[in-house]
Amino acid sequence: MADAPYKLILLRHGESDWNAKNLFTGWVDVNLTEKGEKEAVRGGELLKDAGLLPDVLHTSLLKRAIRTANLALDAADRAWLPVHRSWRLNERHYGALQGKDKAATLAEFGEEQFMKWRRSYDTPPPELADGAEWSQSDDPRYGGIPSELRPRTECLKDVVERMLPYWYDTIVPDLDAGRTVLVAAHGNSLRALVKHLDGVSDEAIVGLNIPTGIPLLYELDADYRPLTPGGRYLDPEAAKDAIAAVANQGKK
Amino acid sequence: MADAPYKLILLRHGESDWNAKNLFTGWVDVNLTEKGEKEAVRGGELLKDAGLLPDVLHTSLLKRAIRTANLALDAADRAWLPVHRSWRLNERHYGALQGKDKAATLAEFGEEQFMKWRRSYDTPPPELADGAEWSQSDDPRYGGIPSELRPRTECLKDVVERMLPYWYDTIVPDLDAGRTVLVAAHGNSLRALVKHLDGVSDEAIVGLNIPTGIPLLYELDADYRPLTPGGRYLDPEAAKDAIAAVANQGKK
Repeated sequence: MADAPYKLILLRHGESDWNAKNLFTGWVDVNLTEKGEKEAVRGGELLKDAGLLPDVLHTSLLKRAIRTANLALDAADRAWLPVHRSWRLNERHYGALQGKDKAATLAEFGEEQFMKWRRSYDTPPPELADGAEWSQSDDPRYGGIPSELRPRTECLKDVVERMLPYWYDTIVPDLDAGRTVLVAAHGNSLRALVKHLDGVSDEAIVGLNIPTGIPLLYELDADYRPLTPGGRYLDPEAAKDAIAAVANQGKK
Repeated sequence: MADAPYKLILLRHGESDWNAKNLFTGWVDVNLTEKGEKEAVRGGELLKDAGLLPDVLHTSLLKRAIRTANLALDAADRAWLPVHRSWRLNERHYGALQGKDKAATLAEFGEEQFMKWRRSYDTPPPELADGAEWSQSDDPRYGGIPSELRPRTECLKDVVERMLPYWYDTIVPDLDAGRTVLVAAHGNSLRALVKHLDGVSDEAIVGLNIPTGIPLLYELDADYRPLTPGGRYLDPEAAKDAIAAVANQGKK
């Protein structure tokens, strides 16, 4: 309905309790740290200062993304936005690694296997059994997902596949209606979206990191592809520093 | 689809900056005070302790209701709920009284006129002109409401009339689907709903107050009418005390 360019803003949640503790998190519903809350507020201030005010919000079902969005929108005075949530925007399910210490996992399995699980495009960790510690098999928020669809582990390729229906069926229609869309989500669900938008290869996506708390603006053409590849961070200097920091995660 | 009894939970926002300052608020988008935030968290704890966990949230477009819901759902670990917002759940529009001190208004206009504006069922205050201080005529969140529908003042009767379409068309279908529904809203939009549910007369509704921050549970029959008139507060003692306190508002 509306004409391009369409405006899409991606926001990765700020630091969580388990980021701070260096644990694999995935679908475990941990909270933001105080630092993460501050990152979220700063993200909202960046939106406000840029006059880049979203018309609608999409989040995952995980509180670290939801609270990031709430805090950012409070700061941008847009708490009243319509909201849509979906498990399809959730972080990558980390399978049997969920709840494990990253450094200990690195020591136990060695760097090759560790980096394969963390970064290869199509190698998922072992499955996490339903009912196991750190499984979400009994969580009512996922009760609407049939068992055969519900992830028990995921590689980034799996995330791309389960995220794309939400992009096509729910986010694109909002863009088409002329709405500036804010997506508050996670490192890997946003990497999956960026891979799709920019047509990043399976190899190159491995080295792509998205910093936390810094809004990333994509202006999209009539075919919903970026006018500028990679989009534009609202604080490019901070983004550059943060990308370097994310790349060093797990090397403690 | 689902069988009765249906479960509906009403939650009035906690104390706002302007409650604390004794100003007429209406559609002015003021924030919660620290006390109001605590009330909201306590409301969420009451839900959690009662095992009364909503499946879906409906709010107004005003941040004091939205933040109350966010804080309550954080406390009840249900931040992931689907959310719907509508101006039809907004507080009563207080017309030209918005932004005015209650005690000064009482002194200026006398108790009879003051109580008529505050409490009569069908006498709205004078209209607030578009573009005036404390008008929301330029607020983008109301951009989707055609001018002829957008309130410039309201009596409680007006609130009932603009709220009911949302009840029938949006909340009832959620109940019908078997969802426990949480409505986070305002003194007068909730009074309007209670008037409808309990069939309260135009005269009796004048004396009905809903306390802040205490969830009010209605179990509804197949015709969406209360099994127990007036519902049940999750903390009946606190509700009793708070109702008395609300009744004394404006008498400073």
